[in-house]
Amino acid sequence: MTQALELAERAAQMGEVPVGAVVVQNNRLIAAAHNLRQTDGNPIAHAEILAIQSAARQTGDWRLTDTALYVTLEPCSMCAGAILLARIPRLIYATKDPKSGAVDTLFNLLSDQRLNHQAEIRSGVMWQESRELLQSFFRQRRENRVESCRSG
Amino acid sequence: MTQALELAERAAQMGEVPVGAVVVQNNRLIAAAHNLRQTDGNPIAHAEILAIQSAARQTGDWRLTDTALYVTLEPCSMCAGAILLARIPRLIYATKDPKSGAVDTLFNLLSDQRLNHQAEIRSGVMWQESRELLQSFFRQRRENRVESCRSG
Repeated sequence: MTQALELAERAAQMGEVPVGAVVVQNNRLIAAAHNLRQTDGNPIAHAEILAIQSAARQTGDWRLTDTALYVTLEPCSMCAGAILLARIPRLIYATKDPKSGAVDTLFNLLSDQRLNHQAEIRSGVMWQESRELLQSFFRQRRENRVESCRSG
Repeated sequence: MTQALELAERAAQMGEVPVGAVVVQNNRLIAAAHNLRQTDGNPIAHAEILAIQSAARQTGDWRLTDTALYVTLEPCSMCAGAILLARIPRLIYATKDPKSGAVDTLFNLLSDQRLNHQAEIRSGVMWQESRELLQSFFRQRRENRVESCRSG
């Protein structure tokens, strides 16, 4: 999670919402990514999606059945869906997402027995660090907007 | 939808689950894709995701606010989440997906008022053609498996 948080910080420095993700296989990090939506102009370039794609390239298999995904924010429905499709058995995330969290907050996509895959979930790991990073990013962005309105 | 079905047929010929998708803007087709999961070894390479990414590249904006997405099968939670993130206002799909449909069947992700975007949904357009294509693909795959077990 420390590495995922470092990636989230790097995202913030680029003006991206600070979310980082890593994929681990046999205690070895095989993929790492952060949010790149603005930079890439790509609506699906969330940290989890990029890390999962990278892990699949690394392993040469779309089934990531012996991996764990660490991410600094609770996944949205797109990313939770990608975790299911990649058959990732274990998700560890830092802080909950009250607006679009699809693992515990708004939906429970990873524990729905009607779907053909479920994942073990652990949350709250280094949640303060992740939340502080997100809050500070959005505070800064609001301040910049106010500043730009005043000088505009 | 005719074009999305042609793409789905092409997917089937490649051994991919036959699903096709197109993105339309001002009555003009700006992106088209079919499922490529096996070929690309990429768990997120669903037709909708590939078409959305391609449309964002075409328009140079991750917000596809004046587009419509046509797809031959009801989107799963990953693809429904991607439609929300790309702010696509209109989804037209052919046949429902009883196993993982996240628009009408298992979940109603595109009409959930707690999320910051909703989409207008139309379903059933050319559903027989799409269902027949999917059924024929899975029938063929089962027969091939039986054949391979017999000769194995």
